[in-house]
Amino acid sequence: MTSSRSLNSVLIEELYGRGARLCPSCDDGLTLVFSQSRPFDLIELEQLLASVGWSRRPQRRVKRALENSLLTIGLWNHNTRIPRLVGFARCTGDGVLEATVWDVAIHPIYQGSGLGKELMKYVLEILRKMRTKRVTLFADPGVVDFYLRQGWVLEPKGCRCAFWYAN
Amino acid sequence: MTSSRSLNSVLIEELYGRGARLCPSCDDGLTLVFSQSRPFDLIELEQLLASVGWSRRPQRRVKRALENSLLTIGLWNHNTRIPRLVGFARCTGDGVLEATVWDVAIHPIYQGSGLGKELMKYVLEILRKMRTKRVTLFADPGVVDFYLRQGWVLEPKGCRCAFWYAN
Repeated sequence: MTSSRSLNSVLIEELYGRGARLCPSCDDGLTLVFSQSRPFDLIELEQLLASVGWSRRPQRRVKRALENSLLTIGLWNHNTRIPRLVGFARCTGDGVLEATVWDVAIHPIYQGSGLGKELMKYVLEILRKMRTKRVTLFADPGVVDFYLRQGWVLEPKGCRCAFWYAN
Repeated sequence: MTSSRSLNSVLIEELYGRGARLCPSCDDGLTLVFSQSRPFDLIELEQLLASVGWSRRPQRRVKRALENSLLTIGLWNHNTRIPRLVGFARCTGDGVLEATVWDVAIHPIYQGSGLGKELMKYVLEILRKMRTKRVTLFADPGVVDFYLRQGWVLEPKGCRCAFWYAN
């Protein structure tokens, strides 16, 4: 494994694609990298999402959903040969007026050291560069405080969320 | 103006694009057509959105947002020469796992006869054909009941909505 000291920004972009950058991590032994272009192994992604308790979705459909997303972000535990996916988030939206965040996940082993916060910062950083006007998300009850602490506004002007499920 | 009786489905699609269809209307004198492909005049769209009280957005950005949308739906008061835009809705999303509805509007003159309900039915009809698994929206307090009456579920599993606004 290459240490974070030897990983300069040029090398990071070479390995993880344009716009990739180091994730500030509390654990000095860890080298974590954010990428918006490194492709995902769908089985690895499914394992990550399952590790945070999400139900399984057909791989073919997940693949198409990722392709049709505005943004797909991976957080990788760096290894020059086989980086491991430890975090994920994606956005849909027009990228101009609206973007919506889905599927935010940090592997349980890596939770508790602020990586979720860093992941959301990276997502918003990219959306800010795209000049997206408003970003929205649907927060499960257990993570509402997580988003509030980061400056998200809960139900502005009494807005409520409504869902419709296909049969 | 052509009467609705002389407007068969072939002619509707010729005039309003593939997938266009008549909107069931209480007013027999009106011929209203749903279309997902007829292009919008941005000034006319802005006037429609302003008529329901939405703030003005830069036209260049609205244009890009429409281009990047999954679905843009117009409800047209039929006229063979100059159809008038009387309703609008759009969706963003991956179209597979998620779609989100934005900017639902019916011109005030046309409100009160169930056109909003028909518009939402048309939107869901298309998303159902695309086999989208879940459709979401953010409802202003005044329209929550409107969506509940149509079978939408409010905040399933205690889900809350959070917004982040660009500076």
